Amino acid sequence: MIRKVTIRDVAAASGVSITAVSQILNGKGQRFSSETQEKVHHFQHKLGYVPDFSARHLIIKSTETIGVLTPDLANPFFSMFIKGVQQTACEENFIPLIFSANHDEHLETSYLQELIRRAVDGLIIASASITAQAIDQSLRRNGIPYILLDQNAVSDGDRVNVDDRHGGELAAQHLLSLGHTQIAVVVPEHATVNIINRLNGFIDWMKSTGHPFSDDWIVHTPMNKEGGYEAASQECVKRATAIFAINDEMAIGLYRGLRERGLRIPEDISVIGYDDIDWGNYVTPALTTIHQPVFEMGQAATQLLTQRIRADNRPFQTVRLPVRLVKRESTGMAR
Amino acid sequence: MIRKVTIRDVAAASGVSITAVSQILNGKGQRFSSETQEKVHHFQHKLGYVPDFSARHLIIKSTETIGVLTPDLANPFFSMFIKGVQQTACEENFIPLIFSANHDEHLETSYLQELIRRAVDGLIIASASITAQAIDQSLRRNGIPYILLDQNAVSDGDRVNVDDRHGGELAAQHLLSLGHTQIAVVVPEHATVNIINRLNGFIDWMKSTGHPFSDDWIVHTPMNKEGGYEAASQECVKRATAIFAINDEMAIGLYRGLRERGLRIPEDISVIGYDDIDWGNYVTPALTTIHQPVFEMGQAATQLLTQRIRADNRPFQTVRLPVRLVKRESTGMAR
Repeated sequence: MIRKVTIRDVAAASGVSITAVSQILNGKGQRFSSETQEKVHHFQHKLGYVPDFSARHLIIKSTETIGVLTPDLANPFFSMFIKGVQQTACEENFIPLIFSANHDEHLETSYLQELIRRAVDGLIIASASITAQAIDQSLRRNGIPYILLDQNAVSDGDRVNVDDRHGGELAAQHLLSLGHTQIAVVVPEHATVNIINRLNGFIDWMKSTGHPFSDDWIVHTPMNKEGGYEAASQECVKRATAIFAINDEMAIGLYRGLRERGLRIPEDISVIGYDDIDWGNYVTPALTTIHQPVFEMGQAATQLLTQRIRADNRPFQTVRLPVRLVKRESTGMAR
Repeated sequence: MIRKVTIRDVAAASGVSITAVSQILNGKGQRFSSETQEKVHHFQHKLGYVPDFSARHLIIKSTETIGVLTPDLANPFFSMFIKGVQQTACEENFIPLIFSANHDEHLETSYLQELIRRAVDGLIIASASITAQAIDQSLRRNGIPYILLDQNAVSDGDRVNVDDRHGGELAAQHLLSLGHTQIAVVVPEHATVNIINRLNGFIDWMKSTGHPFSDDWIVHTPMNKEGGYEAASQECVKRATAIFAINDEMAIGLYRGLRERGLRIPEDISVIGYDDIDWGNYVTPALTTIHQPVFEMGQAATQLLTQRIRADNRPFQTVRLPVRLVKRESTGMAR
């Protein structure tokens, strides 16, 4: 086994003390000549020495990391969210540590503990399986700031708000304008707050415009392509002229199920999704959906969090981001 | 700001020394009575104390983490790879730290340095922008074991091999069997070794069965949906009766471009992809492709790496995984 290159090796090669090397490599070497500083950097590079994290942590105190906990990396919504996080984190000189818990409550708790142990500076928690109470208890006790998405936080804090209720209204408005009134809605069994808001926006818009909506029109199914596929054979979907899928992955799953039943989209049945993942442009027909600014959500969450890490006492902020209807080819006039 | 719960708080509440708490919480408390041990665990839980990573690292020496460096989380191939990594890591009690470099060489180098600094126990590097030489230099010098995918390693080590060459042969065989000889191949400009092997397998099979193949049939384009979309308007694609896309994302991008040109798949032109991402089942028509066992690749890489971390001197191992043709609806008889 090859021995790890240590600070001793750099000190020996440069002919200066270990303390001097340590201070120079930690950006605190102003009191040394520029010649000495250059020599140390030269040998660090030549020998391939990387300061040990633990030792470095004890010296400079900040780990400059944020943890990002997502439920499912296989959903393109979250990979785009992470791209937003990465861009802002990079600009702000933070490293994001990404964890994907696959909707597993046990795994999520263990990752959360691990992130606290690693002394991350802050956390972004996107759509968690564990409760906001449990998160708050772990993190606040340990003085770690966090941004919670898709859940109602239990205490004051910085917020990224997307207008989920309006998103649901837009979906109802669009389908009604095409003459649809028999509309099935496809949602997960255990919905997070953002999903409930979308659903309520949809139902309230229907009712307020004189279109009764009963729970018989709601299909509960897992929030992925497979779930959407299975929903296509549900009784209320068979009676519907249009379907509102609460995310795009489910909508694209529905495509497959409807096709197997011999139905054409939008001639026989209209489908509208939610999120606006890039795949919506590549399926046939291209998917009509409600656009969420997910890249910007990742950026905003990271911006708020890094500002909070640097200035603990600044007033809490809320960033509001809009949604909009994106009309493509999967919705048409009611038959 | 709420004060972080420390080991002192646990010691004070339990009425035992800080050293005792430290040893008990680090699994070295056998010399204390079970009553004392239970008391310490009780107050750790009650107060919500999480041992600090840096301090803990210095005591127990192993961080029990592996770093996973991927080029692009937006490609479902890599999110599935990570699911395989997570499953085995969880079974082996390792925590995976995931980094996605978005094909950015600078970001990749910086993540790599950060992982070394954090003293990860080992690394899985899937398809890197930086060279195998540069990786080897950084990691071997620091005594960190790693598994490199999609690149030829520069030194001996554990390997996960997928039979890329045979995958290319299968694609050629399938298209020839349907009567296609005018076949465009869509590949990235800077191909990694695995991609080059697929391409060579394809070309060599064509030639060895008496079908000349000239470089005019090769289209270079970015390795994502957008790249596939752009490839659809290339001159050689217009002359082709079939297209071999070197990954599924490109194939699905081609769908959109071909549709815009008014071409039907497979009636007017056949398309075969590579990877077998789950989306291939959900597009219209369902995508014919070469299946890579990506979940198993993640599992095997993690298994090899964790075994290497635990037994530094065991002989190097190579795990070979097969590929296979998955016939769906996007390939048909040449027109």
